[in-house]
Amino acid sequence: MKTRTEHDLIGYKEVPADAYYGIQTLRAVENFDICGVKLSAYPNFIKGLAMVKWAAAKANNDLNLLTDDVTEAITKACEELIDGKHHDHFPVDMIQGGAGTSTNMNANEVIANRALEILGYQKGEYEHCHPNNHINLSQSTNDAYPTAIKIALMYMNENLVAGLKSLITAFRAKGEEFKDVLKMGRTQLQDAVPMTLGQEFEAWAVNLEEEIQRLNENAKLFLEVNMGATAIGTGINSEPGYSDKCVAHLNEITKLPIVLAGNLIEATPDTGSYVMYSSAVKRLAVKLSKICNDLRLLSSGPRCGLNEINLPKMQPGSSIMPGKVNPVIPEVVNQIAYKVIGNDLTVTFAAEAGQLELNVMEPVLVRAIFESMEMLENGMTTLKERCIEGITANVEHCKEMVLNSIGIVTAVNPTLGYEASSRIAKRALAENRSVYDLILEEGLLTKEKLDEILSPERMIKPQKFVEA
Amino acid sequence: MKTRTEHDLIGYKEVPADAYYGIQTLRAVENFDICGVKLSAYPNFIKGLAMVKWAAAKANNDLNLLTDDVTEAITKACEELIDGKHHDHFPVDMIQGGAGTSTNMNANEVIANRALEILGYQKGEYEHCHPNNHINLSQSTNDAYPTAIKIALMYMNENLVAGLKSLITAFRAKGEEFKDVLKMGRTQLQDAVPMTLGQEFEAWAVNLEEEIQRLNENAKLFLEVNMGATAIGTGINSEPGYSDKCVAHLNEITKLPIVLAGNLIEATPDTGSYVMYSSAVKRLAVKLSKICNDLRLLSSGPRCGLNEINLPKMQPGSSIMPGKVNPVIPEVVNQIAYKVIGNDLTVTFAAEAGQLELNVMEPVLVRAIFESMEMLENGMTTLKERCIEGITANVEHCKEMVLNSIGIVTAVNPTLGYEASSRIAKRALAENRSVYDLILEEGLLTKEKLDEILSPERMIKPQKFVEA
Amino acid sequence: MKTRTEHDLIGYKEVPADAYYGIQTLRAVENFDICGVKLSAYPNFIKGLAMVKWAAAKANNDLNLLTDDVTEAITKACEELIDGKHHDHFPVDMIQGGAGTSTNMNANEVIANRALEILGYQKGEYEHCHPNNHINLSQSTNDAYPTAIKIALMYMNENLVAGLKSLITAFRAKGEEFKDVLKMGRTQLQDAVPMTLGQEFEAWAVNLEEEIQRLNENAKLFLEVNMGATAIGTGINSEPGYSDKCVAHLNEITKLPIVLAGNLIEATPDTGSYVMYSSAVKRLAVKLSKICNDLRLLSSGPRCGLNEINLPKMQPGSSIMPGKVNPVIPEVVNQIAYKVIGNDLTVTFAAEAGQLELNVMEPVLVRAIFESMEMLENGMTTLKERCIEGITANVEHCKEMVLNSIGIVTAVNPTLGYEASSRIAKRALAENRSVYDLILEEGLLTKEKLDEILSPERMIKPQKFVEA
Amino acid sequence: MKTRTEHDLIGYKEVPADAYYGIQTLRAVENFDICGVKLSAYPNFIKGLAMVKWAAAKANNDLNLLTDDVTEAITKACEELIDGKHHDHFPVDMIQGGAGTSTNMNANEVIANRALEILGYQKGEYEHCHPNNHINLSQSTNDAYPTAIKIALMYMNENLVAGLKSLITAFRAKGEEFKDVLKMGRTQLQDAVPMTLGQEFEAWAVNLEEEIQRLNENAKLFLEVNMGATAIGTGINSEPGYSDKCVAHLNEITKLPIVLAGNLIEATPDTGSYVMYSSAVKRLAVKLSKICNDLRLLSSGPRCGLNEINLPKMQPGSSIMPGKVNPVIPEVVNQIAYKVIGNDLTVTFAAEAGQLELNVMEPVLVRAIFESMEMLENGMTTLKERCIEGITANVEHCKEMVLNSIGIVTAVNPTLGYEASSRIAKRALAENRSVYDLILEEGLLTKEKLDEILSPERMIKPQKFVEA
Repeated sequence: MKTRTEHDLIGYKEVPADAYYGIQTLRAVENFDICGVKLSAYPNFIKGLAMVKWAAAKANNDLNLLTDDVTEAITKACEELIDGKHHDHFPVDMIQGGAGTSTNMNANEVIANRALEILGYQKGEYEHCHPNNHINLSQSTNDAYPTAIKIALMYMNENLVAGLKSLITAFRAKGEEFKDVLKMGRTQLQDAVPMTLGQEFEAWAVNLEEEIQRLNENAKLFLEVNMGATAIGTGINSEPGYSDKCVAHLNEITKLPIVLAGNLIEATPDTGSYVMYSSAVKRLAVKLSKICNDLRLLSSGPRCGLNEINLPKMQPGSSIMPGKVNPVIPEVVNQIAYKVIGNDLTVTFAAEAGQLELNVMEPVLVRAIFESMEMLENGMTTLKERCIEGITANVEHCKEMVLNSIGIVTAVNPTLGYEASSRIAKRALAENRSVYDLILEEGLLTKEKLDEILSPERMIKPQKFVEA
Repeated sequence: MKTRTEHDLIGYKEVPADAYYGIQTLRAVENFDICGVKLSAYPNFIKGLAMVKWAAAKANNDLNLLTDDVTEAITKACEELIDGKHHDHFPVDMIQGGAGTSTNMNANEVIANRALEILGYQKGEYEHCHPNNHINLSQSTNDAYPTAIKIALMYMNENLVAGLKSLITAFRAKGEEFKDVLKMGRTQLQDAVPMTLGQEFEAWAVNLEEEIQRLNENAKLFLEVNMGATAIGTGINSEPGYSDKCVAHLNEITKLPIVLAGNLIEATPDTGSYVMYSSAVKRLAVKLSKICNDLRLLSSGPRCGLNEINLPKMQPGSSIMPGKVNPVIPEVVNQIAYKVIGNDLTVTFAAEAGQLELNVMEPVLVRAIFESMEMLENGMTTLKERCIEGITANVEHCKEMVLNSIGIVTAVNPTLGYEASSRIAKRALAENRSVYDLILEEGLLTKEKLDEILSPERMIKPQKFVEA
Repeated sequence: MKTRTEHDLIGYKEVPADAYYGIQTLRAVENFDICGVKLSAYPNFIKGLAMVKWAAAKANNDLNLLTDDVTEAITKACEELIDGKHHDHFPVDMIQGGAGTSTNMNANEVIANRALEILGYQKGEYEHCHPNNHINLSQSTNDAYPTAIKIALMYMNENLVAGLKSLITAFRAKGEEFKDVLKMGRTQLQDAVPMTLGQEFEAWAVNLEEEIQRLNENAKLFLEVNMGATAIGTGINSEPGYSDKCVAHLNEITKLPIVLAGNLIEATPDTGSYVMYSSAVKRLAVKLSKICNDLRLLSSGPRCGLNEINLPKMQPGSSIMPGKVNPVIPEVVNQIAYKVIGNDLTVTFAAEAGQLELNVMEPVLVRAIFESMEMLENGMTTLKERCIEGITANVEHCKEMVLNSIGIVTAVNPTLGYEASSRIAKRALAENRSVYDLILEEGLLTKEKLDEILSPERMIKPQKFVEA
Repeated sequence: MKTRTEHDLIGYKEVPADAYYGIQTLRAVENFDICGVKLSAYPNFIKGLAMVKWAAAKANNDLNLLTDDVTEAITKACEELIDGKHHDHFPVDMIQGGAGTSTNMNANEVIANRALEILGYQKGEYEHCHPNNHINLSQSTNDAYPTAIKIALMYMNENLVAGLKSLITAFRAKGEEFKDVLKMGRTQLQDAVPMTLGQEFEAWAVNLEEEIQRLNENAKLFLEVNMGATAIGTGINSEPGYSDKCVAHLNEITKLPIVLAGNLIEATPDTGSYVMYSSAVKRLAVKLSKICNDLRLLSSGPRCGLNEINLPKMQPGSSIMPGKVNPVIPEVVNQIAYKVIGNDLTVTFAAEAGQLELNVMEPVLVRAIFESMEMLENGMTTLKERCIEGITANVEHCKEMVLNSIGIVTAVNPTLGYEASSRIAKRALAENRSVYDLILEEGLLTKEKLDEILSPERMIKPQKFVEA
């Protein structure tokens, strides 16, 4: 393999001749063989890095710190990264020491070498365009890296929300489809009072719909960046005015309403936005898990369970039990949720571990959030396409359970009072009789009154009180 | 002990004659000897319950379901509870089965019996004012209980934010006091570049200030209640219009802009607002823990540590080491944070465990959030009064560390370039020399230029580039 | 209130004249108003402290560092504490800064003052018996405090295991009672193959039985103590031989096979035993939660659920739904489990936060474990007495579900092969027919063979293969 | 692409002609696009599956349920898998619904097709050797899958422990190397009393050494398997004696002392062994994180920190601060620990979610443990090779801090008493004087006595009391 020689503070190393990355990336690859997931696995992250470097170059050019030629070459190189090129030159492990320095230097090196080519030089001729002196000019890892992460997260949030919206649509459609299917509502797994299956699905749709706002509102916390903070937020080695210019360019490049943090010393070590957004992601996971638990309960059976709904059959369910089909899709979504909840704890630990002017644990924090978002997006698409859209209802069985239930005694409660109603309920259970028959037998209500009170339409929404 | 006989679905029991609570409360006390913390430990919770019962009574009266006499007696009883009376009649354990039914019935029974007295009857003469038929009219535990919790949390959030604001003020005052104390900034615990101690404290103030908005915004999620949902959100046994009337009364009574949830079936089992608010509480804990870690680092020593600041001496620090004084106040705040983070996990588990039309795990969820809020409030007051306000700076020591540091080489980086600067830094470390001397010795900059670049005022904010 | 004046490193304070505790305890009470749970809430902890102080005094006496008179007075004072006296003189909050120094000094002060009285002096006349110079002699908080905790935990573990054993007995008795109740087994909430209800309860008994060994084995980690470590494990200010003598006395006093840690510098900051034991406690909680989830599933209904078993009715289940009874006891055990899991996370955080020669976060760690153990013990007793012992089976319903199931097709799988069996299963479901009828109809097996294969006794244990 | 047609309960599909896997694997690949990590990423897992299938085939052959020819072909196919062949035919996502059925069927299909080839048939000619009827004979996913996992975990534990032992050796060697380096011990980050740097490293070695036993003891829980449980532990469709024969074969094949669980119905859904082992893995992570925090503290500086030790320089530490080198290796180990702790929470959630006769969440549980083990192994190797082995001590600086400290006053405490010592300490701090000088100045001890008491050798271990 052909190589070129590069050097840094530590010494000299041979870098593959055709690598856009340089010596610092190579050291990072050697130092960090940790989780096996590379930066290249997250195109939005590389895009974020490129946008940051582009904006910084433009701001430096505005301040006459960078020539037009070099600036143009840098922006062109960044554009290529944004277009998805050269991503395989980002081989550093997502989990790394150094607070992201290796990631930042990977970007600096790739952009420098690509810019050198654009300028007509050879890779490694850093005197013309240097990873630190030019690409990283007026920056530090400590502002460039978190800003790139935040940009990535905003784009990834858009994808996550899109997946979520699509899933909601599927639930809502089923809500409409099942709007006349009368079924028993259950609290504490005990028979409660009637509702429709459509109300159940619509409630899930509404429940998930709230997550759109939660995700988007909490993602807005990422709009505040610390470009110009440089090393610790004091802005050392940046010129006055640089921050604002850089952020203005970022707005233009990203099409996102990014703003500068009010206090850069505060903003630099702060991981609060990640904690909050990760919490929102966790909340989505918790809700999906609860809903999938419900789907598994309602489809339990087919003969010894609740059996209200049928999930589409995706695969044989057992290697030994012929004919068994399992709710594999909700099951996998539950499992995704558990991983997401675990990742949120990782974020919490990493956030708490920040010290003084920097939080060095950002790489694992980022890895955890990225993993959660990716898995949830996969899970929601899978849930929609391979489960929700194909659900059917066992209409008759649902209805029979309502009519056979003791819970409908609730509807006569306002008319007969809590104590008489309790007595009827108790008797129905003990004698294995129906509430309906017992009320008539005891002459507590006329058949007309009773039929009115127990009509399905009445029981699923507020009603005027009926006197005995 | 004198008693009165009461009965319920299960049977008969003797209730202490002077107890406002009744048989169902008594059963709950017997069933749940769990964590030893009673409802009575949380006055805001009882206040919330009373407000809910008051609003419901008024709405029922509007709909002619409750007479004026009984309504008036109920509201008077509720007023007494809001004023802090009779709280010792709430003996149920905070952690209970039954999704809060015992809590709701405890409130129903106390209010019924107190209302009976007001109406001139004896306790227990429920035919005139019944815990279920009158106090709980048009309600279920499943709407009254979570609504009361949410009201309590909104009031408790006000207290938490007040404590937080007070702490922020203390940090900010120190930021002003220390604004001219030059000190070394550190990233990854390694010497980085200079800053002022005032910047450090002001950054903490700003960092915590963001929590005010986080807490308040996430507490707003509690403003959405489900009164009128009754058992499962279908509103069975409530009259049309009841929900809106009830919420209007709640607004008046609580002075909070409470609104009705858009979908009551969704709202009834949903614990999303708790998950989110608990996350915000956790974020505050994480930030406080990080800051307390920093305070302990900066005050480490006195002779073998960083020793930049002195925390007030609160107590002898050792049973064996004379003269040792420890940072006991930040230490206790760290520990509070760990309990809060644990409680947030409890909330997550409880939220995920909701099934179908109800989440039966709310009691432990509520206990966890209440405990976290109370401990954080205690911790922040303690931190302010017993630590932050008494902190002093070791001004000279701070300054010496800056002048002695290698990190100030960063300031010459733009002028000399990354590679020359790296070489100087490496030489300084190896030869135990100062960066200042080496730069002069190597003739890289004139003394005037170097003094300009390394002037403290220059190094703590952005500066125009200086040519060599 | 009458007082006496005491002083310490910080200054002077008035201590209530009749308090056995002194100035350092008082400072701690003022400094730490955190969780409201006092040391006095845990008698075993005070007992542990007294045992440690007793053993240390005896070892010091052996080394002629303490006179016989003072030693005797100290041991007498300790005996009183072990007997449950003076516990109200331990008013310090369980959650405290200072790594337990306040707890250790509280013990030192109470024992010193009580010993003074025994010796015929007034409280506070410390020249005769001093909290630090006599009671704490050859000790530091850093060895005395964790050793006391570990002794407490060993005693508390005995109680926890006793509660667990009692619960297991209840499950086992039901296993025997229900040994002939045929019912459907379920995997993934789908009908699987038959089993007996007795097998289900016996499996729970066995499942919990494993926890006895887990708890006891992991509690054994507490047997290793660091007495003689003094401040950081180097044993400064202790005489050679002290450690061994102290541990020998501890063995005698506690009747526990306590040993000295092999490396005291390692042992002093180490919290590994707590992490491991807390994990075992968490495992118990996880298992109890799973079992309670199962109990709630199997008792779901009564008419729209699985309805295999009936839990005893402990209280009316609803304020609005007459006759509803909920599984309140399993529900409260679930909630305990969630708190325990949260506490385990607190332990994890506290353990990770140890720094250098000490872990200052032990107080919250201890509080978390103590709380978990106490709640679990309460929960298990409640579960046994108020739920398991009163469970009844719906024998006929259980049997009907088996006969009506498709899952029994599994039993013909070896004879007919997976594909034919799958086809029968699919047809049964589609046509709402019984597996039994279809097999006969298709002539796949004779009635005799089929009856043999599907006999209940055959299906619940391994059987010789039957040829078609 | 050439294909062959296969069918199952759901229908027909085209399978790539050269794939050893079949239709059920293909369905799983389509259904589960979740985390992107395939079964093939864990060779030990595939090895475990092959060993299980091998043992089952042999047991079936013993019982005359499988011919010698087919048995031989199956064992040969299994041998190939154990040798690392065909692993790319395991394309199913590690996180999957169905409780591992897809994993089990993937193994069944690959082995069946490879066995068919060995027998001289074409892939897919299942009449001669069928994934369910032959490979899965007498088994269910519910026994074969967890048994394979447990075997994998036992082998993986061996690797983890090997990595751990290697790391311990490195710590121990440094303990020996630094055994005469006197340094200050610190508790609560405050100067405490002297020790040697060798004691510090040796303590870490001992601290980690305990983990060997923890891991191995808890891994032993995996030795108990449930082969013969089949679907739910009742052993349906297995012959009497099969379990024992199968386990005997497993012993021979795995060389592990595997035993049969005492109660197969209990063992089948039980995930207790994973919970416990994951806790042990977490404990290792917690300890490593604490040690890495310490390493970062002790190497803080170089000029404004503790600066007791130097970590080897692995890469330039900053993109902006020339010469800065960061403790990147400990930092990455901290981050691994946070991920491991998050994964342990995932395991807890998954374990709690088991229902009735099975825990369907095992796949995510397994993925979490596998990931943790792999990352820890990587992290420990990295820590050893790239950090610990290259650490050097700043001997003079360490010693100066001791001599300059106030903490050494502790050594005169037994001789002068706690109060006089406290006074000296307080004065030393206030007047910025040395303890040594003040004691002499006050005439509290002769120079000879003082020198004796304060000799370094005395202060780092227990000593006979010295009278004034």
